[in-house]
Amino acid sequence: MDIREESLKKHADLAGKLSVVSKGKVDDMHDLSVYYSPGVGAVSAHLASAPDETPIYTGTNNSVAIVSDGSAVLGLGNIGAKAALPVMEGKAMLFNRFAGIDGYPVVLDVHTADEIVATVKAIAPSYGAINLEDIAAPVCFEVEERLKNELDIPIMHDDQHGTAIVVLAGLLNSMEIVGKSLDQTRIAIVGAGAAGTAIAKLITLYAPKSQTLMVDSVGIISSIRTDLNPQKKQLLEFTNRADINGSLDDAIEGADIFIGVSKPGLLTTEHIKSMSDKPVIFALANPDPEILPELAKQAGAEIIATGRSDYPNQVNNALAFPGIFRGALDNQVSKITDQHKIAVAETIASLVSEPSAEQIIPNVFDERLVGAIAKAIK
Amino acid sequence: MDIREESLKKHADLAGKLSVVSKGKVDDMHDLSVYYSPGVGAVSAHLASAPDETPIYTGTNNSVAIVSDGSAVLGLGNIGAKAALPVMEGKAMLFNRFAGIDGYPVVLDVHTADEIVATVKAIAPSYGAINLEDIAAPVCFEVEERLKNELDIPIMHDDQHGTAIVVLAGLLNSMEIVGKSLDQTRIAIVGAGAAGTAIAKLITLYAPKSQTLMVDSVGIISSIRTDLNPQKKQLLEFTNRADINGSLDDAIEGADIFIGVSKPGLLTTEHIKSMSDKPVIFALANPDPEILPELAKQAGAEIIATGRSDYPNQVNNALAFPGIFRGALDNQVSKITDQHKIAVAETIASLVSEPSAEQIIPNVFDERLVGAIAKAIK
Repeated sequence: MDIREESLKKHADLAGKLSVVSKGKVDDMHDLSVYYSPGVGAVSAHLASAPDETPIYTGTNNSVAIVSDGSAVLGLGNIGAKAALPVMEGKAMLFNRFAGIDGYPVVLDVHTADEIVATVKAIAPSYGAINLEDIAAPVCFEVEERLKNELDIPIMHDDQHGTAIVVLAGLLNSMEIVGKSLDQTRIAIVGAGAAGTAIAKLITLYAPKSQTLMVDSVGIISSIRTDLNPQKKQLLEFTNRADINGSLDDAIEGADIFIGVSKPGLLTTEHIKSMSDKPVIFALANPDPEILPELAKQAGAEIIATGRSDYPNQVNNALAFPGIFRGALDNQVSKITDQHKIAVAETIASLVSEPSAEQIIPNVFDERLVGAIAKAIK
Repeated sequence: MDIREESLKKHADLAGKLSVVSKGKVDDMHDLSVYYSPGVGAVSAHLASAPDETPIYTGTNNSVAIVSDGSAVLGLGNIGAKAALPVMEGKAMLFNRFAGIDGYPVVLDVHTADEIVATVKAIAPSYGAINLEDIAAPVCFEVEERLKNELDIPIMHDDQHGTAIVVLAGLLNSMEIVGKSLDQTRIAIVGAGAAGTAIAKLITLYAPKSQTLMVDSVGIISSIRTDLNPQKKQLLEFTNRADINGSLDDAIEGADIFIGVSKPGLLTTEHIKSMSDKPVIFALANPDPEILPELAKQAGAEIIATGRSDYPNQVNNALAFPGIFRGALDNQVSKITDQHKIAVAETIASLVSEPSAEQIIPNVFDERLVGAIAKAIK
């Protein structure tokens, strides 16, 4: 049975991957009157005058809403709310498994930035934090920005920042292995959506002298381009400072690092051969990478990372998000900042004691991860 | 320690009454790839083309959102979203305890009917059903009506219909005890909000010849009144057919049944003495009833029911809602109809094998309840 068949079967067997269970016993009338009417009235009356104490008396100290409109799900694209629900349930499983966090899947039947923002603001008092997930660019940028400004709980679009953090972690160890400084590298990032944009931003923040080129389906994003939307224009503020024009091939030729968040098979062995010495390849297209690791190695890649669990160096958001939200909730951090993201990337990288081409990133089941990352969110 | 102190302490000890837990094991990379990427992609791809199969592969076959804007909470009134959260968590505990249903508390920071409807419609694909809770009249009427029309999952405002169903169940057994037919009674219902309105509607539906008078803070709701809002005007379509004017006292004098959803202490012993023979009293104000049972008995009440757990005959919505939603989810019922409500009331009444003045309603822990009620929802 292949993984797809097995997944369909196991999903149907479980008929839902989550249970919402009571933490207290409700075995008699006394329990009922403590946890429900009339006793709960005392708690509600107290919170009416002291709403800031909500996390003391409710689950908001430990809960994260996992919010998606289903417009950019895995490799599937815009499949809508209901079809996105299994992914959000899966993410809630990971929150539970890795960080003991109560993840509440919320899939939305609205798709404009205004509607998503209005909906999330309306339901926000129910939760301790918001994980935005699988919302397409450019809507995701506006949604996250506005929610961060308008709500006082942590908001993070994981497809952007979770990915960027784990990529940066992997790059830190990769640079150690190849003996380069990130600040002296040229980097081709292919795919200018949510993940690519966040990766470029975080790398530039960490290594301001690095030379980053973003490539979309048309070519290198440069000032000569007349087809750029406002979000892509903004990329020029921190990428392509030499204002190079050209194609995908031009971007990759001579680069030290290739980062793909694009589509299966995009990267050829010829591409890798055209890169600088000791090429570092992050081929993150899902579920199939831009190039398979064995091919990349044959073509001379020094390090190859993918999104896949069946090869070494899996760039997996689950390395980061459980600890990030654990830390934000525990330390009552209301905004996840750029400094937090860099601290988390460094923490993740540091957990690999002896980085090698076969291990630049810790295993997602590494039990030190959540605690160490949570400490970095202060 | 009184119940309020105990409740505050136990709420702080638990720090949230719910956990969202994983139903499947996530112990290795294979589990991750089955329940999350890439396996879950097969499930999402399937649901993208067959969204009607969402309940087969996700938790919507067993989930109910408990939605409140915190505008009419217990006896506390409009206390807002955060202060309402402990009540919704408590309700989710009861869903879990009594019906094995996953209850998802959702408290809303919006309060107009338009905003509440828009928000609930936006998040609706996440859940199998919607329990509206503690939303003030008249907004609650419009919200429920519109959501029932615009969504294809069961919607029930429990403060209205749960209460009405349990009251009707209690009245059915009460009438057997006092030897009257509901169709030949005069009934004074004091409190013309969500619960009072629903009680009047359901009684009239069941016993169209009964004479029901609704009383609000001004007096009997009659056509002479010039201060009635549209919802109260609508009450005249099925209450007060003789178009009687007058005060609270006038409504109660000669009545067979008093139903209070108003305020503590409203009903006096003089009131009860002015009623017809074998008066039946449902004093449902929360947390303190319109009259205490011992006083009501002294004044000649044949039967007294309250909302309190420390007296016999507790009118408790928890008798009805777990089974109603269990049945709606299991039988894929997309609308809870008036016929369902009557069938549930009859089912609840039938579970008291020998009705007496001390027991007109089953105990909320009666294990037959949920299964019997669920069968009535078809």
